[in-house]
Amino acid sequence: MAIVKPRTPAGVLELLPGQQMAFQRMLDEIRAGYERFGFLPVETPALELTDILLTKSGGETERQVYYVQSSGAWEQRQRIKMGLRFDLTVPLARYVAQHEGHLTFPFRRYQIQRVYRGESAQRGRFREFYQCDIDVVGKDTLSLIHDAEIPAVVHHVFERLEIGAFTIHINNRKLLLGLLDALGVDSSTVRTLVLREIDKLAKVGPEKVAAALTEDIGLTPEAADGIMQFVSIDGAAREVMERLEHMNIDSPEFQQGLDELRTVVQEAGGFGIPESDLVIDVSIARGLDYYTGTVYETFLDDHPEIGSICSGGRYDNLAGHFTRSRLPGVGISIGATRLFSQLSDLGLIEPPPARTQVLVTLFDPDLLHDCADVAGRLRGDGIDTEMVLEKRKLGKQLKYAQRQGIRFVTILGPDERDRGTVRLKDLATTRQYEVQLDALSDLVLHLLSGRNDLPPGLVAPTSEEGA
Amino acid sequence: MAIVKPRTPAGVLELLPGQQMAFQRMLDEIRAGYERFGFLPVETPALELTDILLTKSGGETERQVYYVQSSGAWEQRQRIKMGLRFDLTVPLARYVAQHEGHLTFPFRRYQIQRVYRGESAQRGRFREFYQCDIDVVGKDTLSLIHDAEIPAVVHHVFERLEIGAFTIHINNRKLLLGLLDALGVDSSTVRTLVLREIDKLAKVGPEKVAAALTEDIGLTPEAADGIMQFVSIDGAAREVMERLEHMNIDSPEFQQGLDELRTVVQEAGGFGIPESDLVIDVSIARGLDYYTGTVYETFLDDHPEIGSICSGGRYDNLAGHFTRSRLPGVGISIGATRLFSQLSDLGLIEPPPARTQVLVTLFDPDLLHDCADVAGRLRGDGIDTEMVLEKRKLGKQLKYAQRQGIRFVTILGPDERDRGTVRLKDLATTRQYEVQLDALSDLVLHLLSGRNDLPPGLVAPTSEEGA
Repeated sequence: MAIVKPRTPAGVLELLPGQQMAFQRMLDEIRAGYERFGFLPVETPALELTDILLTKSGGETERQVYYVQSSGAWEQRQRIKMGLRFDLTVPLARYVAQHEGHLTFPFRRYQIQRVYRGESAQRGRFREFYQCDIDVVGKDTLSLIHDAEIPAVVHHVFERLEIGAFTIHINNRKLLLGLLDALGVDSSTVRTLVLREIDKLAKVGPEKVAAALTEDIGLTPEAADGIMQFVSIDGAAREVMERLEHMNIDSPEFQQGLDELRTVVQEAGGFGIPESDLVIDVSIARGLDYYTGTVYETFLDDHPEIGSICSGGRYDNLAGHFTRSRLPGVGISIGATRLFSQLSDLGLIEPPPARTQVLVTLFDPDLLHDCADVAGRLRGDGIDTEMVLEKRKLGKQLKYAQRQGIRFVTILGPDERDRGTVRLKDLATTRQYEVQLDALSDLVLHLLSGRNDLPPGLVAPTSEEGA
Repeated sequence: MAIVKPRTPAGVLELLPGQQMAFQRMLDEIRAGYERFGFLPVETPALELTDILLTKSGGETERQVYYVQSSGAWEQRQRIKMGLRFDLTVPLARYVAQHEGHLTFPFRRYQIQRVYRGESAQRGRFREFYQCDIDVVGKDTLSLIHDAEIPAVVHHVFERLEIGAFTIHINNRKLLLGLLDALGVDSSTVRTLVLREIDKLAKVGPEKVAAALTEDIGLTPEAADGIMQFVSIDGAAREVMERLEHMNIDSPEFQQGLDELRTVVQEAGGFGIPESDLVIDVSIARGLDYYTGTVYETFLDDHPEIGSICSGGRYDNLAGHFTRSRLPGVGISIGATRLFSQLSDLGLIEPPPARTQVLVTLFDPDLLHDCADVAGRLRGDGIDTEMVLEKRKLGKQLKYAQRQGIRFVTILGPDERDRGTVRLKDLATTRQYEVQLDALSDLVLHLLSGRNDLPPGLVAPTSEEGA
């Protein structure tokens, strides 16, 4: 038989089981963090109808949509009707509009699923990746307090992930748009180009951005200068607010943005975010997105080169394509696949402890049923347990446990069987115990709880070095 | 702006948040059950290269593959290179062959992901659905003990799911194939047709199957009779084994199948499966699948009309298309989307308790920061807590908690604030307590643990009926 070389398409992340466990831990912590704040789970199909997917005005994502067609329909050259979602926001808009009558507003949902983009595969660009989103969607109105709660959720989640110090950057798009108003830059095409340039600030530096504003986009030197002065404002939140207030920009939009930003930053403090972890960053533009007010980005203090690891913002009207109801929202997204991949490259992903806590070794194949009994007892007491089912040298079985990060092994020979006991070896301490069968689970749970003393009524370790 | 009607494609399952919580609970329990037996997590991309997907010889699934192409490539009429996986077994075969050098064998993995089939959408047929698979893959050989452990995992998982009494049916394909040998039915095309007919037995009854065997497939009456007699064998495992042993079928394959089945059933008993929950069912053929030995199906005792809710089996060589290594395997799959949907239709899905345990109500908007402090304390102590951020009538807030299934609400007014306390209302008992702020989490955890007495040092309930 001809062999097809086993391989994945470019631009996807596939992990070995140990890495998958670490990634799974990241997803689990993100989910638990979202649930800690009372967000409700939603999943939507990866398949969406193309007229749903392609209503968004942004051109770039449209060219990146993956079309989907059954092989049968393909052969008949039928019209394309479905595609894969390229984010979780369009499906959310469709979901909220479709199920509006069955939801309670403000609707708080989290969604952790893969999205698909027909990108040309470059390093770090994924065609299939996890997004972990929360959004709060209001009916008609949505208080700015929600904009202030989002950073609190982000803060909680990144504390859980234990990936080092981070800072949440916050801005309000109305400041930039108001400034452009005041500077006489009112063509929406030009404004979009300007926002995109500002987004490059951290990457290419202020000189190049300033040059692009005048040379490529054709702004007057005065306008470019006004923008560059504005985006260079920096410092503690209180200080930045004061400088913004004293800028005297002649634009109602700017003043509204300022009021919103002040409220959001003040209220965010009320949610317990330390002042140093949330900064006002007036240079955040998020040019291609459809945000209308508050915008967020999040950076690792020690690895700014990764770029933002969690971004989002406020949109005035989420689902205007799908319903006449006005549904304002605010949300954020963690691109977990990219984050995991970059942290792995930096060596910052600790392999988590194995979920399997005990390996029941097979010392004597005649005692398979006795070993199955041991495994059954442990499992019945809530302890994740793998059982060796085929004869191998005991040393190999212990090595396997070690390599898998399984902390405990049991060893059962004819002697133990006759005494109604089993040996338990703690690979973390190399201590070995002989215990009555019905005390085994208690001993494992006791040791797992971090105590190394013996629970009352248990025999002493039989050896420090073990078998 | 023109409104696009919000809707999903046909053949997908999209749930409201309450249902999604119930479905999520099902997936979580399946995962926890698999982990309880030490299976390791694997996820593979939904996107696979077409030459990987289409090596399977089975024709039916090939016609159901969803092709995937970026909109850009589509416009350029490029060749199709990718498709969506239609099961988790082909990706597993590719994964194991691709990463063989980095895996330890026997390799035990679980995988819970969506698969895609370009089916014409009928009721109950999904185009996108979850499969929850476990497989054990050996290098060169794999002991039959693994075939015996699989039903133990299935048993554990369905006990966890609490969806009523169920029975695992087990068979060995070599029995049927050996019987066909002995009956002189040796064309592989005819054998496949026969296996497909046998699979229809429960649905259409023995008369129709017998008729199809002679009239449609063209077997001799003697051969058809031999098959029908065989598949009618029924009874307790021990009894069925005895009858099979006394059949004296002249086929080495039959005898091998008998030996394997005996071993698997005996060893399965050792794993603690009650005898009544595992039956030998010689009529299981699983005609379209690529199993070579043991096969499993699982039925709900009270709802046989649903059909098998968990199926699988043994395959001699999993990854022959992708590697010259011989990789025998055994596994099962739970089609969670279909199972959930059918149980929902039968009214058998209990809405699970909300994960959110406390709703921090907003009685007085001036006390928002105090309420955020209450929420922060609860969350810090591991209690999932939603906070009301916008002013509404308190009665509406309580109703919201009730509707969401949130058990506790806190109420904080100026009086409580001045006393350094907060009121906690238990909607399950309608009892209301006033507690010091720093004792609130302890009280919630105490009540959550199922105790209704007061923990020492706590004040008495302020009322039985509450605000």
